[in-house]
Amino acid sequence: MAHALRLAERGLYTTQPNPRVGCVIARGDTVLGTGWHPEAGQPHAEVFALREAGESARGATAYVTLEPCAHHGRTPPCAQALIAAGVGRVVIAHEDPFAQVDGKGIEQLRAAGIGVQVGLMREAAHELNAGFFSRVRRGRPWVRVKLAMSLDGRTALADGASQWITGEAARADVQRWRGRSSAILTASGTVLADDPRLTVRLPAGERFVPPWRVVLDTTLRTPDGAHVLDVDAPTVLMHAPDAVVPTHLRQARCVAIRRDEGGLDLRAALHWLAQHEVNEVHVEAGPVLCGALFAQGLADELLIYVAPVLLGHTARPMLTLPPLDDMASRWKLKAIDRRQVGEDMRLVMRPDTDPQG
Amino acid sequence: MAHALRLAERGLYTTQPNPRVGCVIARGDTVLGTGWHPEAGQPHAEVFALREAGESARGATAYVTLEPCAHHGRTPPCAQALIAAGVGRVVIAHEDPFAQVDGKGIEQLRAAGIGVQVGLMREAAHELNAGFFSRVRRGRPWVRVKLAMSLDGRTALADGASQWITGEAARADVQRWRGRSSAILTASGTVLADDPRLTVRLPAGERFVPPWRVVLDTTLRTPDGAHVLDVDAPTVLMHAPDAVVPTHLRQARCVAIRRDEGGLDLRAALHWLAQHEVNEVHVEAGPVLCGALFAQGLADELLIYVAPVLLGHTARPMLTLPPLDDMASRWKLKAIDRRQVGEDMRLVMRPDTDPQG
Repeated sequence: MAHALRLAERGLYTTQPNPRVGCVIARGDTVLGTGWHPEAGQPHAEVFALREAGESARGATAYVTLEPCAHHGRTPPCAQALIAAGVGRVVIAHEDPFAQVDGKGIEQLRAAGIGVQVGLMREAAHELNAGFFSRVRRGRPWVRVKLAMSLDGRTALADGASQWITGEAARADVQRWRGRSSAILTASGTVLADDPRLTVRLPAGERFVPPWRVVLDTTLRTPDGAHVLDVDAPTVLMHAPDAVVPTHLRQARCVAIRRDEGGLDLRAALHWLAQHEVNEVHVEAGPVLCGALFAQGLADELLIYVAPVLLGHTARPMLTLPPLDDMASRWKLKAIDRRQVGEDMRLVMRPDTDPQG
Repeated sequence: MAHALRLAERGLYTTQPNPRVGCVIARGDTVLGTGWHPEAGQPHAEVFALREAGESARGATAYVTLEPCAHHGRTPPCAQALIAAGVGRVVIAHEDPFAQVDGKGIEQLRAAGIGVQVGLMREAAHELNAGFFSRVRRGRPWVRVKLAMSLDGRTALADGASQWITGEAARADVQRWRGRSSAILTASGTVLADDPRLTVRLPAGERFVPPWRVVLDTTLRTPDGAHVLDVDAPTVLMHAPDAVVPTHLRQARCVAIRRDEGGLDLRAALHWLAQHEVNEVHVEAGPVLCGALFAQGLADELLIYVAPVLLGHTARPMLTLPPLDDMASRWKLKAIDRRQVGEDMRLVMRPDTDPQG
């Protein structure tokens, strides 16, 4: 299964909106066939693995990182393909919560007399597709908030200058996180201040599905000629229902989202994205939007680059959060990953919802 | 030499104001005698090692982490003891810059025909006694600023509440850093706000020299009954020359230090401490004093505990530093050590003075 998960990872940048899936067909320690899902519209992992195994698949064991599909989608159902190939046993890391599968793949296999085991390396399989599972189960994408800060928790100087706190290695690393996402979310304040491109720059030859650029722009302030409006990737501007679309944004995709007290309703914005098959959202924005996502419990993960520098107390804060009444109500996080990226530290943190934590 | 350095470390909490020194006498791979300096007034490391080696020291090699002394201090000169014992060779990690030694130990050994090699594991030997070297060479102690902060660089809530950001393991770890210091420095603002004891709490049976508690208290505001005035450790109150000593501080050790624009002249305060044999200063204070030490280039080391929590932008900053004009002038640090202490991260950082850094 570890092998199948590594295969699945090859689709990290290309399968969206589909999940990343890998498959290994083996008999004992002998691998007979391997496959992974490369991108939407292409065959599923099982199909490649079965092709490679050929006749030897009969009676063998198939290891799949996600429950085989049971429906005719863009491709025929994989559960039927496994049955037709005569595999003796199927080991599945994680069920597929997608409505048209959701246990039906397992049922079909069992109905055909095939032994099915579910849950091997379940957690790793979930991690690989946290966005897909979040979209299907919670009706909103997995939201990852990227922050680049100084050791004293500052993301920009008082005048807003933020280029560059972190080093080249960290900035190259960010491109990978952008690349695996379905959408990159920012706010019009960041567009006005920094005019970012929000595209993905990976080494030449590496394929990826360009993530949408999504700008929360309540009053449609995004100016003519802003980089996010160029043709390098699709762009969505989310605005309040009463905003007037200016001439220069007539060609852009503008979506009305209901307001809440702080601006646009973030839950509604995320819901819209999930309905449009967005799995992982990568947020690069200022402390207000990042803080609002976190404070509303909508930030599933913080991706934090900490540079070995100090900017001082007059520099801009990492997150704008409501004041705390006491230390007991501090926001607790748990560390998922810590590593060095060039001169900077990279932390992946998640809200610690465990009351014992 | 690595063995000798480990021996020297046994004196970490007890040798001050003396340096920590270890000695191994060996012939090839055979260790004949070991010793370390336990505390001021006790024999030096070489004496213990020679005693243990006895007659076998003749012709052997002595590994010493610091140049053997050449003067009659509280104990007779170790260079002479090594000569008398007939050792064949002396390997020294680091010269002793102390005026009464400063190469004379090496000279005496060489004059007696003993081969001397200097510089093996020099850097590690320097680290072990950074405070002693700083005091002797620079006329000021090694200053280590301890900070406990949230991931967003906050050390206290807006109302000043700071107990406890970090966990128990981190707080126990701080006691060790206090214990190895000659003095714990704070400001009267911290005394008034938190009434800390600033004593060392180590597990029962562990010996240490109680560090002085030094309060920068320009106008002598330390109130009657403050914990820093109790008898658990010596206390020094540093005040402006024009401050009037109130009745309740008549019994305390009050020292006048000249003013500078921000309060007391920090260089003068540190100079006074060095003159009084303070090697390492451990600073536990608010963002103003910590920031001033750092901005004036007087903080040699930052000892930072980072808790996996967020406190938000209204909470208090880590360091009060002068505003920066541009990103190029950001304060650069280099990481000396990074580790996990309980749930918290511990970082030891130093100003990065390397122009290439």
